[in-house]
Amino acid sequence: MIKAGIVGISGYTGVELLKLLLHHRQVQVAYIASRSHAGKRIDQLYPFLKGFSNLVIEKIDIEKIKTLDVVFLALPHTVSAGIVKDIFPHVKVVDLSADFRLDIDVYERWYKVRHPAKELIDEAVYGISELNRDKIKHCSLLANPGCYATSVILALAPIADLIDDSVIVDAKSGVSGAGKSLKESMLFCEVNENFKAYAVGSHRHVAEIEQQFGLNNRIVFTAHLLPVQRGILSTIYVNLKRAVDIKIFDEFYKSEFFIRIVDNPPQIVDVKGTNFCNIYPALIDDKRLVIVSVIDNLIKGAAGQAIQNMNIMLGLDEKEGLYPAPYYP
Amino acid sequence: MIKAGIVGISGYTGVELLKLLLHHRQVQVAYIASRSHAGKRIDQLYPFLKGFSNLVIEKIDIEKIKTLDVVFLALPHTVSAGIVKDIFPHVKVVDLSADFRLDIDVYERWYKVRHPAKELIDEAVYGISELNRDKIKHCSLLANPGCYATSVILALAPIADLIDDSVIVDAKSGVSGAGKSLKESMLFCEVNENFKAYAVGSHRHVAEIEQQFGLNNRIVFTAHLLPVQRGILSTIYVNLKRAVDIKIFDEFYKSEFFIRIVDNPPQIVDVKGTNFCNIYPALIDDKRLVIVSVIDNLIKGAAGQAIQNMNIMLGLDEKEGLYPAPYYP
Amino acid sequence: MIKAGIVGISGYTGVELLKLLLHHRQVQVAYIASRSHAGKRIDQLYPFLKGFSNLVIEKIDIEKIKTLDVVFLALPHTVSAGIVKDIFPHVKVVDLSADFRLDIDVYERWYKVRHPAKELIDEAVYGISELNRDKIKHCSLLANPGCYATSVILALAPIADLIDDSVIVDAKSGVSGAGKSLKESMLFCEVNENFKAYAVGSHRHVAEIEQQFGLNNRIVFTAHLLPVQRGILSTIYVNLKRAVDIKIFDEFYKSEFFIRIVDNPPQIVDVKGTNFCNIYPALIDDKRLVIVSVIDNLIKGAAGQAIQNMNIMLGLDEKEGLYPAPYYP
Amino acid sequence: MIKAGIVGISGYTGVELLKLLLHHRQVQVAYIASRSHAGKRIDQLYPFLKGFSNLVIEKIDIEKIKTLDVVFLALPHTVSAGIVKDIFPHVKVVDLSADFRLDIDVYERWYKVRHPAKELIDEAVYGISELNRDKIKHCSLLANPGCYATSVILALAPIADLIDDSVIVDAKSGVSGAGKSLKESMLFCEVNENFKAYAVGSHRHVAEIEQQFGLNNRIVFTAHLLPVQRGILSTIYVNLKRAVDIKIFDEFYKSEFFIRIVDNPPQIVDVKGTNFCNIYPALIDDKRLVIVSVIDNLIKGAAGQAIQNMNIMLGLDEKEGLYPAPYYP
Repeated sequence: MIKAGIVGISGYTGVELLKLLLHHRQVQVAYIASRSHAGKRIDQLYPFLKGFSNLVIEKIDIEKIKTLDVVFLALPHTVSAGIVKDIFPHVKVVDLSADFRLDIDVYERWYKVRHPAKELIDEAVYGISELNRDKIKHCSLLANPGCYATSVILALAPIADLIDDSVIVDAKSGVSGAGKSLKESMLFCEVNENFKAYAVGSHRHVAEIEQQFGLNNRIVFTAHLLPVQRGILSTIYVNLKRAVDIKIFDEFYKSEFFIRIVDNPPQIVDVKGTNFCNIYPALIDDKRLVIVSVIDNLIKGAAGQAIQNMNIMLGLDEKEGLYPAPYYP
Repeated sequence: MIKAGIVGISGYTGVELLKLLLHHRQVQVAYIASRSHAGKRIDQLYPFLKGFSNLVIEKIDIEKIKTLDVVFLALPHTVSAGIVKDIFPHVKVVDLSADFRLDIDVYERWYKVRHPAKELIDEAVYGISELNRDKIKHCSLLANPGCYATSVILALAPIADLIDDSVIVDAKSGVSGAGKSLKESMLFCEVNENFKAYAVGSHRHVAEIEQQFGLNNRIVFTAHLLPVQRGILSTIYVNLKRAVDIKIFDEFYKSEFFIRIVDNPPQIVDVKGTNFCNIYPALIDDKRLVIVSVIDNLIKGAAGQAIQNMNIMLGLDEKEGLYPAPYYP
Repeated sequence: MIKAGIVGISGYTGVELLKLLLHHRQVQVAYIASRSHAGKRIDQLYPFLKGFSNLVIEKIDIEKIKTLDVVFLALPHTVSAGIVKDIFPHVKVVDLSADFRLDIDVYERWYKVRHPAKELIDEAVYGISELNRDKIKHCSLLANPGCYATSVILALAPIADLIDDSVIVDAKSGVSGAGKSLKESMLFCEVNENFKAYAVGSHRHVAEIEQQFGLNNRIVFTAHLLPVQRGILSTIYVNLKRAVDIKIFDEFYKSEFFIRIVDNPPQIVDVKGTNFCNIYPALIDDKRLVIVSVIDNLIKGAAGQAIQNMNIMLGLDEKEGLYPAPYYP
Repeated sequence: MIKAGIVGISGYTGVELLKLLLHHRQVQVAYIASRSHAGKRIDQLYPFLKGFSNLVIEKIDIEKIKTLDVVFLALPHTVSAGIVKDIFPHVKVVDLSADFRLDIDVYERWYKVRHPAKELIDEAVYGISELNRDKIKHCSLLANPGCYATSVILALAPIADLIDDSVIVDAKSGVSGAGKSLKESMLFCEVNENFKAYAVGSHRHVAEIEQQFGLNNRIVFTAHLLPVQRGILSTIYVNLKRAVDIKIFDEFYKSEFFIRIVDNPPQIVDVKGTNFCNIYPALIDDKRLVIVSVIDNLIKGAAGQAIQNMNIMLGLDEKEGLYPAPYYP
């Protein structure tokens, strides 16, 4: 069995990684760590895991991490890079923070911090699994994409060359995308029966999308907070350079298991609990295209794509551990 | 006291009208009617009204309606026009259906029915209160705007002349906007923890917006269903003909009580339970503008604006009966 | 106009007091204070109040409070009593904390703190408005009841003398009952689509109920957290000493505006947004009675009853400022 | 592979059976049927199943059912028995309706219909898996218990002999327990932000509990509707004949994988998405016991227990196909 570790187990992404890997037939989670809950058994933190995992949450221990085959880092930016610096290249790393997704100047402009391991950025591969599979196969440091960015990049990829002028992305995310942080704005009474726009016109994740397609400064992005736990739905408005056949989407993804081109407007429930991305392209006329894209932000937008990437890095079946168990109702 | 009637009391808009009018100091609801619950006392249908209203739901009775000073029709399209035909001009009418909002050809194209009273369309005034106040004052047949249309028209009005090419409207509505209809897609288990796009690229309400501004075929509209009971948030993307000072919004609405230009991205809770429309304009650069607009779909988007319009028609204080009781938390 | 103050404006109860008092025709809020937001305008904290109140949040200032006619304290226990000590009897006090609800020994046993103003406990009147009206009229220090306690005491009062052995109270509260505190367990993702029992067998509020009826140690109470913002529904199981006519409930409350005895199982929506308590008594057989009671925890369970009590203390119409605006849908 | 069928695929229980059986390593679903959607492919009805199942929904066909090894009937009562009559004993039947759970007189009293196959009631085994395992092994007609009944029977079993006088069951269920029926009371706007009691004092499922323990007329039961999709939490109040050691619960279930005795009050999220039942027993004093029990109503309360029972009937590993995938967050 391949020995995996999860650092940052106390957040939503950390526990999602663990839940998914419990079903992975080639990988065993051998180490879980957290900055805040070391010493507790995992089922004390998450009673629903009682009887399934006896793992004890450990402190972050560089030497222990080095003994693993692969480690997932589900940590805030800069914290993550600080650890990568010490463990690379002793262990394969799937980093779910933003630290290795962007060129250094773009990173420092958006995150307004000094990067603690900028010398490693060139080692990293940006992991939209379906688009970068060949590079992912050979990498040891995987920068797992942001959730918003995943939903948009997968939607735009088939027509990236045809984009005229700017793209408008109106994205809506469930609350787990913000992590388990103690902010007043994340309290039940503030989120429930409410809906809000934020980051109007721009968002950190835009940098990932622009970098992917070379669309500098051409994406107008607005983020919104949905009163749901999981899911991202992005509605994307594109002006096309020339008329296009909508079948280009089916063609582009015809071999991809986790991408479903659909012919009705999608909803979050279509992908909730799974690693799928559903994409609905709709032509308004010859020059105007609307694309609606939907993912589970914690799975295809985080833990699921991370495992998909790990599978590619380790030469395993890409779908292993990601067999869907859709949440419905 | 002015004697008012509400026809269509069993829907969400009907009961919202009643709730608001209970606090109106010049108007008394003297008649409530429904196609399906005639004979019941209102507090049998709505137990929360026990002790507040003894009204009995009646059948729709043309002669009784003619004895009123004003009547609100909260009915499906065509049903509404069929009644207006019989009661006009004996009583002032505030019609909340789509029947008198559009030119006849536009109406028949979108609603795919024959209009039962097309000869009265010219009598009607389209009631965005803030924009058409002068006409509303003198009218006897008021076409109350659609909820989506209200949120968009109010947002676009200050820069209507500056719109270059097309406008993108990404609108999200709470569930009460769909009325109290028995559809599987409106069941709790189908809506909760879900979010979906529908009417991608176009929606009936677009016709109202295009007609208001003469923007034929230039609005790309997508509707979305939010898992909340009340509220519409519209995110609107405009390319401008020329640079504009954002203060134009404050200036345009400086005398309007129910319009608040805000400098932070708005949320539904900012207007829930009230007749306000909050508008947040944000310039991306000289030529690109994002406007976020938020209303309570049942109040400013339906019953509240209807009462505001009635107040104008009857020469009353425009705010009467609309004193806000924001819902929070 | 009577001059009122609200200390603790930043919590859910504080802002509910303000919202309700904005509609009170004899009382004007002249002072609002908070330990954490002094200096901000109220509409910076709560944008939905923009245009309705220009009040600036002040520091807690004993001298200023003394200039008021009445002050509402919406503060944590012990903090509240510490202030009462300094302002009593210069100003009439409605205290929404637990500090003056209980006998000193009961208080110190449940709250495990020293009471900072125990000499004033005898001055205080416990304010279930409908039951203690005569005492409330003449008091200057009002201990406003707990939300759970209100829902249970009102339900039990008509048959208090008939209770055989113990009473079982299975109570369920919306999230706002826990206040606006930053706890992980109050985050949207932890509360939504979830439901939990807590305080199994006992709860602080039980002391208020037992004290009211002299039922020492005879109430078995379990609290539960509902994934809703507002509302408490208590299901109460009583063994009766002897057969009783259910009409005793109607009789007992026949003159009470805010108590509605209903003949169908109640729901939160029946009282949400209002100061009502709906009570549904159902006999199982001669000796066993189930009572379901429902209130809005922030209104009849806190701010509403507080204003009702103030009205009684000041000789005003008991309903003033409490005219219902039910939230539906 | 064992060939299974699901009749009643369009309801929540039907699709839950299919979702779970997709992961079962010895059983293949060979036939799905519905009274209303015959002819559609399953992923037209449930887009989230696209790519996972190509099954076409068929009409209910007695001859086809007879060719299966086992069939699950997720149908309304009487409809189910009508089919069992025709297919028994040609195929093993797991019936999820109420038709074979009760003695004929009890059944007809509660359901107020004539039983269409009363001669088969004696063939049926009532399937609380943990309690009736030996009988289940040898049966061909399995009456799968009601969801409320499951949550209560499992909680009471360890102390069934010690119950003094009556038991009070205060049960709260998520909305999926009511099925996918088109009732106004199940619309999102009616359920969300609401909570209600119903069936106060009694409920059909009580008959199952009383029959299991011979507690005729001794259970006082109140059902409540929670604004969540999944989950039942039952709070049970028992007077004991004599003092009991709480460890009796651990002892009773020590070999049971799917029962977890917990030492903190449970919540729905502890079992959501799984076949577990968490039970929390808390002594108030020597004679009074509170038990809180929680299950996922669609899994341990329906589809999961049905598969567990099928596993027992077919001699398979009882846990197969029920490997948990807890839903969190």
